[in-house]
Amino acid sequence: MQKSDILIIGGGPAAIVAANTARDYYPKKSVTVIKKSEKSLVPCGIPYIFGPLLQSPKDDFIPCGERAKKMGINLIIDEIVKIDFDNKIAFGKEGEEYSYEKLILATGSIPNKPKNIENYDAKGVFYVPKEADYIEKMYEKIKKLQTIAVIGTGFIGVEIAGELAKSGKKIHLIGPRLLKNAFDEEFSEQMESIMLSENITFHKNRHAKKIVLNEENKASKVLLENEEEVECEAVIMATGYRPNTKMAIDSGISKRQFDTIYVDEYMRTTKKDVFAIGDCAEKRHFITRRTIPIMLASTATAEARVAVANLYNINMVKSFSGTIGIFSTVVGDTCFASAGITEENAKCEKIPVVSSTIISDDKHPSKLPNNHKQTVKLIALKSSLQIIGAQVIGGIDTGEMINILGVIIEKRMNVFDLLNLQVATHPLLTSAPTAYPIVQAAQNIAKLRIGKE
Amino acid sequence: MQKSDILIIGGGPAAIVAANTARDYYPKKSVTVIKKSEKSLVPCGIPYIFGPLLQSPKDDFIPCGERAKKMGINLIIDEIVKIDFDNKIAFGKEGEEYSYEKLILATGSIPNKPKNIENYDAKGVFYVPKEADYIEKMYEKIKKLQTIAVIGTGFIGVEIAGELAKSGKKIHLIGPRLLKNAFDEEFSEQMESIMLSENITFHKNRHAKKIVLNEENKASKVLLENEEEVECEAVIMATGYRPNTKMAIDSGISKRQFDTIYVDEYMRTTKKDVFAIGDCAEKRHFITRRTIPIMLASTATAEARVAVANLYNINMVKSFSGTIGIFSTVVGDTCFASAGITEENAKCEKIPVVSSTIISDDKHPSKLPNNHKQTVKLIALKSSLQIIGAQVIGGIDTGEMINILGVIIEKRMNVFDLLNLQVATHPLLTSAPTAYPIVQAAQNIAKLRIGKE
Repeated sequence: MQKSDILIIGGGPAAIVAANTARDYYPKKSVTVIKKSEKSLVPCGIPYIFGPLLQSPKDDFIPCGERAKKMGINLIIDEIVKIDFDNKIAFGKEGEEYSYEKLILATGSIPNKPKNIENYDAKGVFYVPKEADYIEKMYEKIKKLQTIAVIGTGFIGVEIAGELAKSGKKIHLIGPRLLKNAFDEEFSEQMESIMLSENITFHKNRHAKKIVLNEENKASKVLLENEEEVECEAVIMATGYRPNTKMAIDSGISKRQFDTIYVDEYMRTTKKDVFAIGDCAEKRHFITRRTIPIMLASTATAEARVAVANLYNINMVKSFSGTIGIFSTVVGDTCFASAGITEENAKCEKIPVVSSTIISDDKHPSKLPNNHKQTVKLIALKSSLQIIGAQVIGGIDTGEMINILGVIIEKRMNVFDLLNLQVATHPLLTSAPTAYPIVQAAQNIAKLRIGKE
Repeated sequence: MQKSDILIIGGGPAAIVAANTARDYYPKKSVTVIKKSEKSLVPCGIPYIFGPLLQSPKDDFIPCGERAKKMGINLIIDEIVKIDFDNKIAFGKEGEEYSYEKLILATGSIPNKPKNIENYDAKGVFYVPKEADYIEKMYEKIKKLQTIAVIGTGFIGVEIAGELAKSGKKIHLIGPRLLKNAFDEEFSEQMESIMLSENITFHKNRHAKKIVLNEENKASKVLLENEEEVECEAVIMATGYRPNTKMAIDSGISKRQFDTIYVDEYMRTTKKDVFAIGDCAEKRHFITRRTIPIMLASTATAEARVAVANLYNINMVKSFSGTIGIFSTVVGDTCFASAGITEENAKCEKIPVVSSTIISDDKHPSKLPNNHKQTVKLIALKSSLQIIGAQVIGGIDTGEMINILGVIIEKRMNVFDLLNLQVATHPLLTSAPTAYPIVQAAQNIAKLRIGKE
């Protein structure tokens, strides 16, 4: 029996932050992390392994062992197969027993396998698990190929397709409009117009029906629902993720929709002294209040900090009243980012909204070199003008601009608050103070309600 | 007599936004702008006229005439010399009379001339007014010179010195540590270590006593207080600005400290139907509550929007309870930004604070090309842990990252709110979710208050 005060199961961002935070807050407690593999990688860095930016999968590895040692964290490589919540013991694959005072489940998520596609798990069909060993082998195989079909147009599908194309490969991308859940149609269309110049054939709104195998039983074609066949040497399935919760649920923990683990506002599960954080824990949408399958490392790490603060006493209330869904990505040299709900999704959820889109520059005067157009769309509740969604297209600073909008949504600011916004502007760094696009878009909405004298 | 419904005096960012917003909100009202010169320039773009980024002063011009015409704004070139507030008439230089229903004073600021420096206004001594005609002439003269002394180490001094140096000129920069009011000492020192590699001799903590003239009565040396002499062909005085309010005060408007015009939370002056916005209007510090001489285009434009919304009815409360002072600039290829109060200034004001500084990367994994180190310092009230100041050093996205911190300060968020922050992270655009520096710095402060079990 190995005893720990604080036991964390998992190896992703939630587990890493939970362990570091536990060290910060509870220096007298022993902290143990149990993860399946020696190696760890930056999950959202995986697509870039397949492109020209990183030289090999190793460039995406996290030196977990060294860091754990430095931090005084006990790192154990094992797979937990069962937990006895009553006696507070987790069981390893080889029968090892780990007892705990406080347990944090951070088991993450695993690729979703689309069983409606025939031969979905055949030879030559790859998934994108956040597992270094799998990704290393996949990388070696994909590297030698020329034509690859990518099924799925979420972030992982779009980014892997883009990176493979930049490495000179011929890509068939199959799925609905790009990043449909994070962006409105006009944003997807701009993304598509940039991507199409990049060695990619986009089979838009097509669905894969079957992976056709060759005489070696290896994927050689994708058969679409319209009977079209797409030839390829391999298929990458970027068809989403599901919570990795089978072990915890089989051990008796309460679950919620999408097989997530039930958690309260302090990240406590229904079992005594057991917390769950990250992709395996339930998420609710900030505005629709529904359970949603959004999986984000940044949400996971915020949850880790809430859970650890509340391990022994309630020290901190989760101040976000739901997950806002905040994303950014890069297509070509243009950045796309989104926070909150899209106009399309708001309409589906019967949320009356008003919106405004402003196109500005990210430098001023616009004659400065490297000026990049900057598009900001704001979506506000029609009733109170509270901001509930935003989308941005622009240069490299789009990655932080969306985080301004994230705080605005989280703090339930409205259009009039934005008219008041005090922002730093600088010729080389932002749009002009007279044209700051977040404020301009707010004013476009405000003018529906002011004046007309 | 020329009649207008809404009359705006001034030509800077506050006046531009006031005019555009008036058009947006009150389409039936006539809007007139009276400014001194046909030409307008982007004020914060002025330093870049003197460097390699812009080709000539014209690249920094704003096509005010065209834009006004397009927006249906009546643009008049004249100088208002007196206002009869009782009869609601403004008088032009040649005796022209302009009547108004509502008047907005946006007369801006003018260079502060340091009368304690002998020969402060001699030939070969230049100031940096926001006047296109002056800057054009100054540019033609400076262009031909090789050695220039810049007095003053605020934003304009540092930026002009940097740009002239990049154009191959030899610069003597004279003043206290760089950007003393916006940054703590360790940030100034980093800035200095970058600037010194750039053709600049920094006479740190030296004060100019006299401009020494040659036989043609032209500036040829700066005599410092320690009797050292700095040879130069011209002197640029970057010695701050003062409100351009003499005309309004002489006409009878109530003034406040630093000769600013008194305004309330709706930007109303003491005179009926008269509003003041921008550099000429009083500013109060968000935390010290003192009147402060901060002059920022972004604050000016926010005030313009508040004033115009409230011209005929109270439609909008100024939601910022004071000016937070939010700045960004670029030195070499490194960006520096600041919001709120510095640790040093907090101590001077007897505000007990705690602070934490985190150094992270702006990409992840850090092996990605163009990764830039990112330093974030947070300053919080020791009592409530409310964030009251922040400083950032980093790459190009520093310009928007400081605006996240601006919203955080404005919305009075505390360290625990930041631990909860939902941010978008992306390998090519931000630090890792596990290492996001704003959150890490917050945790460093939070750990003073949590745990120790």
